[in-house]
Amino acid sequence: MAALEDCQVAVGYKVYLAQAQRWLEGKRTISRGMTQELERAELALELALAGERVAVVSGGDPGIYAMAAVVFELARSRGVTLGAEGLAVEVIPGVPAVAAAAALLGAPLSHDFACISLSDRLTPWEEIERRLELAARAELVIALYNPKSRGRSWQYGRALEVIGRHRAGETPVGVVSRAGREGQRVEVTTLAQAGRAEVDMQTLVIVGNSRSFTWGDFMVTPRGYLDKYGGKED
Amino acid sequence: MAALEDCQVAVGYKVYLAQAQRWLEGKRTISRGMTQELERAELALELALAGERVAVVSGGDPGIYAMAAVVFELARSRGVTLGAEGLAVEVIPGVPAVAAAAALLGAPLSHDFACISLSDRLTPWEEIERRLELAARAELVIALYNPKSRGRSWQYGRALEVIGRHRAGETPVGVVSRAGREGQRVEVTTLAQAGRAEVDMQTLVIVGNSRSFTWGDFMVTPRGYLDKYGGKED
Repeated sequence: MAALEDCQVAVGYKVYLAQAQRWLEGKRTISRGMTQELERAELALELALAGERVAVVSGGDPGIYAMAAVVFELARSRGVTLGAEGLAVEVIPGVPAVAAAAALLGAPLSHDFACISLSDRLTPWEEIERRLELAARAELVIALYNPKSRGRSWQYGRALEVIGRHRAGETPVGVVSRAGREGQRVEVTTLAQAGRAEVDMQTLVIVGNSRSFTWGDFMVTPRGYLDKYGGKED
Repeated sequence: MAALEDCQVAVGYKVYLAQAQRWLEGKRTISRGMTQELERAELALELALAGERVAVVSGGDPGIYAMAAVVFELARSRGVTLGAEGLAVEVIPGVPAVAAAAALLGAPLSHDFACISLSDRLTPWEEIERRLELAARAELVIALYNPKSRGRSWQYGRALEVIGRHRAGETPVGVVSRAGREGQRVEVTTLAQAGRAEVDMQTLVIVGNSRSFTWGDFMVTPRGYLDKYGGKED
């Protein structure tokens, strides 16, 4: 909030700028579409080099599949020094979509986990599939970002199939869309049934590990206290 | 903040209760030591069953290596129904330690990543080592939680060795202690040198993937926009 109030100009995807509007009253804002990340970073860097205090607004946490890296990538490619010797830059952490989704489901991330994006716009599908396979073998809880979009329909089903080689069909799966926003949906299902869930680019899918369980409406990955200390406690 | 102000009694590790003190003025607080997670969950559950509105206070995000799962595990083992049909429970997400550490380093988590705890108190070391090996092969950025404690000294060096079978010695590594708190330390080093960094239970270590780079004081894992669109942009 302080950074937004302190900036002179804010650059961002229009949906996120609209969410931040109350801290940006009377300021210059520059919005661009969802796929124009590089253009947003270029505008921000140019304005900052011209002496303006610029806020780049991201959804969730800016460092997780969001804008922070794009700004650094571009600064390097243009030879723009950042930090103590150059342009001051500060990344302000937030609540990542995966943490917001997990909280609505219960506690599915409470043991080791991986976040993997199914978008093959910048990463070849073979590489994504290899990561899914190894993460599934590693007993990591797996959070799938960007499971589907208008132009990508088969990757989500394929990802469930790859994970299903190493996890049982009854493994709990949480499906959360638009966490904390209008149109929020939360569903707990199983790996065998997860292909039928309604998912899109605003959905996060969390696949449990072999010890994840459901309790009431909730999905939980145990930390293991009761296995270890159960004898003493009961 | 609203949940803290709304509760009747707060239960937590004493360091976190002290941090939340300004929202808990005049309320009953019950603190326990760092290793007494199960005892804290039991107290909270008993008080809630007795009709009190209880806040269980965690550091970072309560769903990531923290208290949320312990409460659910215990409720299941005691047969206490949670949710619409029983005790109301709400998990409130926060900024996870890994996101706070990443923001101080730059943008090291901007591609697929895994969080793996090196604590073998509840998980056998062989299983942890297997996860590290597979995550390293999967090109995931790897965030190491709980790298060392007073009673565990060799696991951190061993973890770097396992990851080093699949990553170059010059891979960037970020070491962050006490992110956002007194005594904060931030260091960017390499996989070959990371064993010499000062680490303890309050440290998070982030090992980059094969494309992570440093720029100025910062560590960044690229999303790949400039590889893909570089030709057009330059």
